[in-house]
Amino acid sequence: MTLDLVTARDWLAVAVEEARQGLTEGGIPIGAALVAADGTVLGRGHNRRVQDDDPSAHGETSAFRDAGRQRTYAGTTMVTTLSPCWYCSGLVRQFGISRVVIGEASSFFGGHEWLAEHGVEILLLDDPRCIDLMDRFIADHPELWFEDIGLEAGT
Amino acid sequence: MTLDLVTARDWLAVAVEEARQGLTEGGIPIGAALVAADGTVLGRGHNRRVQDDDPSAHGETSAFRDAGRQRTYAGTTMVTTLSPCWYCSGLVRQFGISRVVIGEASSFFGGHEWLAEHGVEILLLDDPRCIDLMDRFIADHPELWFEDIGLEAGT
Repeated sequence: MTLDLVTARDWLAVAVEEARQGLTEGGIPIGAALVAADGTVLGRGHNRRVQDDDPSAHGETSAFRDAGRQRTYAGTTMVTTLSPCWYCSGLVRQFGISRVVIGEASSFFGGHEWLAEHGVEILLLDDPRCIDLMDRFIADHPELWFEDIGLEAGT
Repeated sequence: MTLDLVTARDWLAVAVEEARQGLTEGGIPIGAALVAADGTVLGRGHNRRVQDDDPSAHGETSAFRDAGRQRTYAGTTMVTTLSPCWYCSGLVRQFGISRVVIGEASSFFGGHEWLAEHGVEILLLDDPRCIDLMDRFIADHPELWFEDIGLEAGT
């Protein structure tokens, strides 16, 4: 079932809250939530590279982890403030997460078109709060951002 | 530089040790190591879904996490007992890990051909110890195995 925009924006608000929490902690402001078909938030989290010195803790993987073991991901939605990188796109594909709601894909363009090709419903919201969070962060801390996506700064 | 088979098998031994440790703990026997170009083991780990109730802890992501923050992954090798699933293949692609040494791809065929298409060097060893570990585990605990790759048992 295609998601209506009002609901998608409500769900995105959870991810934005996580991203802001990450920023407050001195981290990279990317947040995510894994939401069940009925709107229940199964898990939520944010990037914790800086806070935990953990390069595996992206927004989406943190939300996935927080949700704990699930018997199936059919019908679930991964809501994320930023287009999912290949690592997080791979997570969505492997576990059969049905839909990804994305805050923005202008500061970083990840694997969401690949996911769409493989049957995942993609909803890109082009949310100005999400764009602003990342644009400011990348301007202020380019080295952390490039580290987080496995690039040498400036490449 | 293409890896010689003797070195690849030495590195795989670390991943096999991790897989066996996981089995001893009652977990899914998949192990991995992230190895630097000079052979230094940067990180090692095994699947911890059962042990930690953590669905995000695959062998490869555990090894990646254990290695901590790295400025670059150029020249590194992910050594894994089993063909990397999409989640772990995405990790390799996103962070620019140069090579994947794979114990076996007969019990599960993941994303390693996709990685090869994107410039990652793939070395598939077809190791009988790795095949035996997974074949026995899947026969004994199909429900855990299917859960780990996001499938309903028997599908």
